[in-house]
Amino acid sequence: MNPDIRREREGATFNKDALTHILDGGAEKTRRRRELELLVIRDPDFQYEDHNFLSRSERYESAVKKSAQMILKIREHGISDPDEIYYYKNFVHRGRPEPLDLHLAMFLPTLLTQATPEQQDTFFMPAWNLEIIGTYAQTEMGHGTHIRGLETTATYDPSTQEFVINSPTVSSIKWWPGGLGKTSNHAIVLAQLYTQGKCHGLHAFIVPIRSMSTHKPLPGVVVGDIGPKFGFDEVDNGYLKFENVRIPRENMLMKYSKVRPDGTFHKPPSDKLTYGTMVFIRSMIVGESARALSKACTIAIRYSAVRHQSELRPGEPEPQILDYQTQQHKLFPLLATAYAFHFVGQYMKSTYHRITSDINQGDFSELPELHALSAGLKAFTTWVATAGIEVCRMACGGHGYSRCSSLPDIYVTFTPTCTYEGENTVMMLQTARYLVKSYRQASEGQQLTGIMSYLNEAQHRLHAQPVANRPTVIDISDLAMDFICLQGELQKHKNQEDAWNNAAIDLVRASDAHCHYMVVKLFVSRLGEVGDVAVHSVLSTLAVLYALHGVSQNSGDFLQAGLLSVPQLAQISEKIKELLTQLRPNAVVLVDAFDYPDEMLNSVLGRYDGNVYENMFEWARKSPLNRTEVRSHRKKNKLKNKWGGSSLGVTHSPMNQKTRVQVPLTTIVSLSKTLNPKLLQGDCPCNSRGTVPVTTDCKSLWIRASDKCCKCNKLDFVRDI
Amino acid sequence: MNPDIRREREGATFNKDALTHILDGGAEKTRRRRELELLVIRDPDFQYEDHNFLSRSERYESAVKKSAQMILKIREHGISDPDEIYYYKNFVHRGRPEPLDLHLAMFLPTLLTQATPEQQDTFFMPAWNLEIIGTYAQTEMGHGTHIRGLETTATYDPSTQEFVINSPTVSSIKWWPGGLGKTSNHAIVLAQLYTQGKCHGLHAFIVPIRSMSTHKPLPGVVVGDIGPKFGFDEVDNGYLKFENVRIPRENMLMKYSKVRPDGTFHKPPSDKLTYGTMVFIRSMIVGESARALSKACTIAIRYSAVRHQSELRPGEPEPQILDYQTQQHKLFPLLATAYAFHFVGQYMKSTYHRITSDINQGDFSELPELHALSAGLKAFTTWVATAGIEVCRMACGGHGYSRCSSLPDIYVTFTPTCTYEGENTVMMLQTARYLVKSYRQASEGQQLTGIMSYLNEAQHRLHAQPVANRPTVIDISDLAMDFICLQGELQKHKNQEDAWNNAAIDLVRASDAHCHYMVVKLFVSRLGEVGDVAVHSVLSTLAVLYALHGVSQNSGDFLQAGLLSVPQLAQISEKIKELLTQLRPNAVVLVDAFDYPDEMLNSVLGRYDGNVYENMFEWARKSPLNRTEVRSHRKKNKLKNKWGGSSLGVTHSPMNQKTRVQVPLTTIVSLSKTLNPKLLQGDCPCNSRGTVPVTTDCKSLWIRASDKCCKCNKLDFVRDI
Repeated sequence: MNPDIRREREGATFNKDALTHILDGGAEKTRRRRELELLVIRDPDFQYEDHNFLSRSERYESAVKKSAQMILKIREHGISDPDEIYYYKNFVHRGRPEPLDLHLAMFLPTLLTQATPEQQDTFFMPAWNLEIIGTYAQTEMGHGTHIRGLETTATYDPSTQEFVINSPTVSSIKWWPGGLGKTSNHAIVLAQLYTQGKCHGLHAFIVPIRSMSTHKPLPGVVVGDIGPKFGFDEVDNGYLKFENVRIPRENMLMKYSKVRPDGTFHKPPSDKLTYGTMVFIRSMIVGESARALSKACTIAIRYSAVRHQSELRPGEPEPQILDYQTQQHKLFPLLATAYAFHFVGQYMKSTYHRITSDINQGDFSELPELHALSAGLKAFTTWVATAGIEVCRMACGGHGYSRCSSLPDIYVTFTPTCTYEGENTVMMLQTARYLVKSYRQASEGQQLTGIMSYLNEAQHRLHAQPVANRPTVIDISDLAMDFICLQGELQKHKNQEDAWNNAAIDLVRASDAHCHYMVVKLFVSRLGEVGDVAVHSVLSTLAVLYALHGVSQNSGDFLQAGLLSVPQLAQISEKIKELLTQLRPNAVVLVDAFDYPDEMLNSVLGRYDGNVYENMFEWARKSPLNRTEVRSHRKKNKLKNKWGGSSLGVTHSPMNQKTRVQVPLTTIVSLSKTLNPKLLQGDCPCNSRGTVPVTTDCKSLWIRASDKCCKCNKLDFVRDI
Repeated sequence: MNPDIRREREGATFNKDALTHILDGGAEKTRRRRELELLVIRDPDFQYEDHNFLSRSERYESAVKKSAQMILKIREHGISDPDEIYYYKNFVHRGRPEPLDLHLAMFLPTLLTQATPEQQDTFFMPAWNLEIIGTYAQTEMGHGTHIRGLETTATYDPSTQEFVINSPTVSSIKWWPGGLGKTSNHAIVLAQLYTQGKCHGLHAFIVPIRSMSTHKPLPGVVVGDIGPKFGFDEVDNGYLKFENVRIPRENMLMKYSKVRPDGTFHKPPSDKLTYGTMVFIRSMIVGESARALSKACTIAIRYSAVRHQSELRPGEPEPQILDYQTQQHKLFPLLATAYAFHFVGQYMKSTYHRITSDINQGDFSELPELHALSAGLKAFTTWVATAGIEVCRMACGGHGYSRCSSLPDIYVTFTPTCTYEGENTVMMLQTARYLVKSYRQASEGQQLTGIMSYLNEAQHRLHAQPVANRPTVIDISDLAMDFICLQGELQKHKNQEDAWNNAAIDLVRASDAHCHYMVVKLFVSRLGEVGDVAVHSVLSTLAVLYALHGVSQNSGDFLQAGLLSVPQLAQISEKIKELLTQLRPNAVVLVDAFDYPDEMLNSVLGRYDGNVYENMFEWARKSPLNRTEVRSHRKKNKLKNKWGGSSLGVTHSPMNQKTRVQVPLTTIVSLSKTLNPKLLQGDCPCNSRGTVPVTTDCKSLWIRASDKCCKCNKLDFVRDI
């Protein structure tokens, strides 16, 4: 154990495990999670493999193999609790995505929710047994978040009782589905349903895409991998183009909508029935934001405790970089954010379960609020976390840039959440729509309940109390002030749509403020449930830091709305500095409490024992480029090449003349001047500091016509070698 | 040509080429740059190669080969102007770093500036001819920006007249130098010089590290590649460890410092002599920020002009996403920033040349200001650009995440600038030191000149005029107000160093504001030089947008300092929206004016002709994973494996039993519940919506003891296959 990091652990003011239990949801959950972790860590099939040293194809192959074993072992070990399956899956793949994600997360669940019992009989068990491997093909090259714009068609042909699936344009080619490129043999395809000459909108169809025996693409199916991305190397995100592919009528998912053999279309009883999964996945992403950011914080804070650099006081040893105020100011607000998002993630999960249970009882009343909240919080937390991971990486200096830090991987694995499951700006605008609606209701005197109830109070206060008389306590419900300006903008325009677009910047800001407020509120309300005094104290410090840092980052809004005065803001800045100092002794143990074992973090910089440098050296030596002492290409060319030890892969060199040559200094100087233009001057032997003119009209290699000093006019100041 | 993008070009209000000439520094420079571009584009040795489909080793090999050819051809073509060499080099490598960067940018120039004439005779020509390939080994594993902390030692042994080079600790291993891992056979090594029992600080030594004939590491030298990074795949950044490596006394670079044969040390005449190169490279990075950001803007804005999505008005076709206010608000301020940084880059370059020429005349007076400015602007512009590139990437939705967009590459190639050549926070604090010093001088009544002269005025105004009486024109010189608070913080503490650290957050903010102000000022002053009325108009719009967007992003500071009132800020927000609308028709041509040919941009999304989708499809089909229709591993296992078409690389499967099995729904349901917990309910045939309890204590694969419905108590609701 590195002595610096041991000292950090000795200095903490609270019990780490007590906090871990809170994060896990109880001591028993912690125990079981660790048990599952050990199950993976000790499993010879799941031994650690450094993906950084593998090609993309190798990463894919390794992931596919592990996924198949994983599914067998989940059954063997009798793991059936959803959280436990999630943990196990995450442990096996070390937090990385994998080729079967869509099979498990979309294909199987969609069958269960949207297939008829007969369709389940046909498709579910083969899919469960991995004979059918499916993906969910929704997004097209030209159409993402706005799914109504999808172009793929499924046209019913009553003469054969088949649907004919087509990709009518290039932009209609299905694009991005995970596991589509190489792994899947079936896809649930979202397409515009045409029957009896009429379009009935988007429906889902089960389409076989590859032969069950040879795995070759079926006739009319053009399928493949969409090529390398920023991350997700393990996943074969794919493309899929249909040229008159026929599937039986029975392959349309018909639990709700139906097409009869004669082509008659029957509408679904409700259009809210497919709402749930989307809301669930967005809610889960909030928890992912917490996990990604907490991993990045673990790495950056542990490393900052063992890294020494520069000097605070002359003559003293280099301090831990965690002692610099600027470093604390980068990392501690992010640490607070990771905790905040963790609790918000827990809240979203339990809220989802509560509301889903209501929905199952036929009560849809809270669904719009949940929908708005999950959209906004998905966008808010992913934007904050994605930027935060990069702050953590850059806070590690150059070494954060090495793949051994794991920070680049955490970033590229996480950043797509800003786009998938609903592009963030669009999500923010969906939440804004709900906010504006709620605001209108409140201003019409309606008493709002639930999350939006802060608008009731704001309405009362609006014209009641001048700013100066308000208490100095920040009341974020005053944020509602923002809506008044928005309202003005929305009323100014002739039509609602243009007004909406012209207020979009402000609407996104309003959603952002709303989500920010929700996170503060949920973090604070969670504190009330913490019994351990020491843990309560440190979590409270984090919560206050999160809230005040948020205020200081958005100080303009608070001043503009008259919520805070200039002296109050100065106090907040002072308070933030105090909080950084208060958190300093607990920082390392606060990240230890996230409880990521080294095997899951995969980060040399974030090692629990803090022995960074020796292990970084070990890691580097395994780099594929170090497999040979002399790069292979060189060896091959060595004998053919007169250029000897400096062979750079060129088979001959006019410069390899061991004779006496004349070289004009200008040529040398001008090349060097690219990087140090100073050199262009003062090199003439006349010592006159004259400029050497450089022209480019002469093509001769060694002697140039203009090689003369502008002062002494001496031509060709040549050098002997 | 895509009709959308053609329409954009027809609608522009200014002449594109006129603007390009301004960016290049004149029509003749544009002509010559394009000529050099064509020279590379038409050169069969430099044909386009998609690095996205190559392994890291292949990328390195390809880059080394091109670098060697590049150097030959620069000579063959007689290219000698520094700018032209820079262009040519950039074109050959498509803007990517390459293994010879340090040889060209550090090794050769350092020889020229710090070697004696005798040393130049020995080393320069072999290095020039690529027999010696050198790197510059400064950074160590444990020591970056704070170079005084470097640990490598060079101890003089008078008995043999040699220096003994050692890496005394793990943290002293040289780490990061480009081209060190595999390419170089020499290194200029920065080490603490010990002679006659005394340490004389850092000095530079030429150390052979690999054999000139076999290229194998020399005895006592441990050298290799540091492994994969976030980008820079083409470069073999390396490690280097010395175990008593002896080099002749003559290998210490002795133009200034000297060690005599008997070990006597002679100090250099001035310690400012090595200042220049660092300042130059930081100044150049400002221009790099402009280039990286302008590339990202080119891609995002062109793509936003051809991408259609969602709807603004019901029933109308999907609009170009560039018509959304939120998209304009993401991209246009960045476009303005790219232009601003471009002009700042030009200013830094010319200022550097001017001040260097003064220095050559012995006038060092402006060096501290240049040093402070280059440090701060390097940090300011790289932080802004690095975040901006990611905004551009995410503004392209999912496709921005594909490597075919080139945006991931631009990001990973650029983001290290935040750390190298001086870590950004440290740079900001260096600038802050200069600001505080200047502020003190001004408050002592000294009349400041040059950049800092705005502080003179601020001193006068400070107590003269109440905020309310000031004109509504923003005068950023009022920024100096900030220093007063800082001054308070700095005086509060007992010792200067603690005070400094405790004010570090504010000091960084002050530097940030100073740099921001400088950028606005330089952009505006540059407008005065633009004669073309139409170009002047559009550049003015960009400059105002840049300035006002900056104010709105930092509105809290302006309100806090009393520089702006709340109504003024509201006006600014309105004005920003107007400016976005004004820029909209010129956006595409404003990025066209950056004049990146497709061959250099390498971006399917950013293609000049806007034909994105068909080319994305073409690109994807070349993905290495598509070389086989069925992945190779599958084919191999197919016959051995009873699992047929769904073989996932597992050689046997207990699930491959084509017999009638009983499967408990709970197992299925619980797996699915990971993603859709709703499923846990209501699946019992009793239709009672009872919860199915899930336990994990039973390890049997198919039948579980607890498979019963909590309502009807029915056990084992099994399914027949």
